[in-house]
Amino acid sequence: MSDRFEKGMNILKITNKETIEEMFDELEDIAPDLGRFVVEFPYSEIYTRDGLDLKTRELITVAVLTALGTASTQLEHHINAALNVGNSPKEVVEAIIQMSAYAGFPAAINGITIAKSLFKEKGLLPVK
Amino acid sequence: MSDRFEKGMNILKITNKETIEEMFDELEDIAPDLGRFVVEFPYSEIYTRDGLDLKTRELITVAVLTALGTASTQLEHHINAALNVGNSPKEVVEAIIQMSAYAGFPAAINGITIAKSLFKEKGLLPVK
Amino acid sequence: MSDRFEKGMNILKITNKETIEEMFDELEDIAPDLGRFVVEFPYSEIYTRDGLDLKTRELITVAVLTALGTASTQLEHHINAALNVGNSPKEVVEAIIQMSAYAGFPAAINGITIAKSLFKEKGLLPVK
Amino acid sequence: MSDRFEKGMNILKITNKETIEEMFDELEDIAPDLGRFVVEFPYSEIYTRDGLDLKTRELITVAVLTALGTASTQLEHHINAALNVGNSPKEVVEAIIQMSAYAGFPAAINGITIAKSLFKEKGLLPVK
Amino acid sequence: MSDRFEKGMNILKITNKETIEEMFDELEDIAPDLGRFVVEFPYSEIYTRDGLDLKTRELITVAVLTALGTASTQLEHHINAALNVGNSPKEVVEAIIQMSAYAGFPAAINGITIAKSLFKEKGLLPVK
Amino acid sequence: MSDRFEKGMNILKITNKETIEEMFDELEDIAPDLGRFVVEFPYSEIYTRDGLDLKTRELITVAVLTALGTASTQLEHHINAALNVGNSPKEVVEAIIQMSAYAGFPAAINGITIAKSLFKEKGLLPVK
Repeated sequence: MSDRFEKGMNILKITNKETIEEMFDELEDIAPDLGRFVVEFPYSEIYTRDGLDLKTRELITVAVLTALGTASTQLEHHINAALNVGNSPKEVVEAIIQMSAYAGFPAAINGITIAKSLFKEKGLLPVK
Repeated sequence: MSDRFEKGMNILKITNKETIEEMFDELEDIAPDLGRFVVEFPYSEIYTRDGLDLKTRELITVAVLTALGTASTQLEHHINAALNVGNSPKEVVEAIIQMSAYAGFPAAINGITIAKSLFKEKGLLPVK
Repeated sequence: MSDRFEKGMNILKITNKETIEEMFDELEDIAPDLGRFVVEFPYSEIYTRDGLDLKTRELITVAVLTALGTASTQLEHHINAALNVGNSPKEVVEAIIQMSAYAGFPAAINGITIAKSLFKEKGLLPVK
Repeated sequence: MSDRFEKGMNILKITNKETIEEMFDELEDIAPDLGRFVVEFPYSEIYTRDGLDLKTRELITVAVLTALGTASTQLEHHINAALNVGNSPKEVVEAIIQMSAYAGFPAAINGITIAKSLFKEKGLLPVK
Repeated sequence: MSDRFEKGMNILKITNKETIEEMFDELEDIAPDLGRFVVEFPYSEIYTRDGLDLKTRELITVAVLTALGTASTQLEHHINAALNVGNSPKEVVEAIIQMSAYAGFPAAINGITIAKSLFKEKGLLPVK
Repeated sequence: MSDRFEKGMNILKITNKETIEEMFDELEDIAPDLGRFVVEFPYSEIYTRDGLDLKTRELITVAVLTALGTASTQLEHHINAALNVGNSPKEVVEAIIQMSAYAGFPAAINGITIAKSLFKEKGLLPVK
C-alpha cells in the first residue's frame, strides 16, 4: 500500500466510511485500478490540500453533482460525506437549492429528492 | 399567499394539474421554498409572459429536457403539460425526434421512451 | 445530387440562405460529407416532416442550443433562421429567456447576448 | 426497404444483433421513423465509412456515452456492440477508465457499473 | 422598484459591483426583464437566505460554472464576486482545481485560465 | 521529480511536445499543482496502461472533447496529439464526424472547425 493510497484512505474513512467498501466491491473484478485512482488522486491529492477544509470541499461537490445531474449514486454518497464532515442538513439543502439558478429547477429538484431519501433514512427530516 | 404565487398556481393548475401536489409533497419537509420558487419564478413570471403561448412554451420545455437528458421525471411531467395545453401527441413526438440532430440519437430515443410510457397510460398509442 | 439532398437544400434556402454557403465552404476540404449529412438528415428528413411547422421547429432549436450552451455560431445561425421563417424578435427572446428555468441564468444571458449581436446587425433593436 | 436502410441493417446485425428488435419494438407505435433514422443515418452512413473500422468506432461510442452520462441503456447496448466487433472486455474497461480524466470519476464509475452488469450476464468477469 | 428588486440589488452591490451595470446595459434593449429576474430571483431569494453565507455561496458558484464549462463571462464575474465577499485567491483556485475530479481536467484548466486573467488584472499573481 | 511525474512526462513528450510547456507556463503562478496532476494522473497512470495503445487513446479523447463541446483549446491539443501518435488526419475527421450521432451536428461541426484550423497550419489540407 503506497503512502498516497494510505493518505487518501484516511480521508475516505472520515468522509465516506459507510460506502467506501461498496465502491471497492463494485470495482474489484472489473476495474480495481479505478478504485485506486479515486483514493490516490481526488482523496489523497485534492481533499487533503490546504486552502479549503473538508466541510467546504464536500459541500462544493454536492453542488456540482447536483448541477451535472448525471451521478445520482455519487451525489447521495457525497451528501452523506458532507454531513459526516460537519455540514448541517440545512447547509446541504441550501447548496442544492442554489443550483436552480445555474443549472435549472429540474436539477435542483432532483438533488433535493436524493437528499430527502438519505435524510429520511437517517432520521434527519424535517429540515429546519 | 402572494400575488405572484397565486398567478403561478393558476398556470400550474392548467399545465400540471395531475402532478403539482406531488411536487409540493416531495419538497414539503426538506425544501418547501424551492417549490415556492418554481411557482413564483418560472410559472408566475415566465409562462405568463406575452410573446409565446403556453402550447409553444411547453413544447419547447419538452424539447430542452429531452436534449439535456438529466431530468426524466420532469420530462414526463412536461410532456403531460404539453398535452394539457393543446399539443397533440404527434407534436410532442416531433419535438423529441428533432432533438436527434442537436443532442444525438440516444437523447431522442430516451425522450420517446418517456413519452411512450405516459401515452400508454393515457391510451394515446399508437401515435398517428 | 440525390432527391434527399435537394429536398434538404430547399429547406435550407428558406431557413439559412445567408449562411449555408459558409458551412459548405468550411467543410469542403476536410469533411464535405458532414455538410451533406446536415442537408440530407436534419433538413431533408426532420425539418420537412408534418406535425410541426418550420416556425416552431426553428424556435425549438434556438431554445435547445441556448440551453446546451456549446454552439454559439450555430445558435446565431438558428436565431437568424427562426426570424427567416416567421418568428418575431420577441418570440426568439421569449424562447431564450425561458431557458433560465431549465438551464440556468448564465445560459439564458449568453443566448440573449448572441441574439442581440445579430439583432443589432439586422437593425431589430430595441425588441418590444 | 431502401438501399440505405438495408446497408444500415447489415451493420446492426453485426454490432447489435441482440438488441435491434428491442429498439424497433420500443419505437413502433410512437415514432417508427426515429428507428428508421438510426438505421439510415448513423449505421448506414457513418459506421460504414472508410477510415475507422467498426472495432474502433464502437469503442469510441462507449467512451462518449460514458462521458455524457445520460444514456445508460444505449451505453450497455454499445458495450455489447463493442464486444461483438472484436473489442476485448479489457479494451472496453480501458476506454471507460480513461473518461475519468475528461468527464470526472463519477462518469467513469457509472460506466464501469454498466459494463459490469453486462459482463456478469455474459460470464466475462473477472476482467484480466 | 419592488422590495424584491431592492433586496437583490443590495446583494449585487456587494458581490458584483464592478459588473452589474454591464449586465443591465447588455440586456436593456432586448430582454430587460431577464436582468430583473436575475436580481429578483437568485440575488434576492437565494443569496440572501440563511444557512450559507455569501462567501460560501459564491465559491460554490465558481465551482459549478467551472464544471459546466459553458459560461466563461459569468465564471469571471463570479470569481470576482467570490473575492469581493472574502474568498482568498487561493480558495478560488482550490475550488476550481477540485473540479478536475468531477468534470475532468480540461474543465479545471479552463477555469484556472479565466481566474488567472482576472487575478492578473487585479495584481493578485502569483497565488501562494 | 517523482517517478510518476517522469513517467507522465515521457508520454507528454510523445503526444503533446508542442504544447506541454504552454500548459506549465499557464499554470505556473496560479495552480502549478494542477499541471503536476495532469502529468501524474492521466498521462502517468492512464495513457501508460496496457490494453489500449496511445493511438486509440488519443482518438478517443478527440471524440469525447468534440462531444462535450466545452474545451476547444484542449481539443486542438489532443487532435495534434492524435496525429503525433500515428492517427491520420482522416482518422481524426472520422472520429469527429461520428459524434454527430451522439452529441448532435453542432458539436461535430465545431470539432471539424477546430481540426481544420490545426490541419491548415500543418499543411494537412485537403483531407483525403
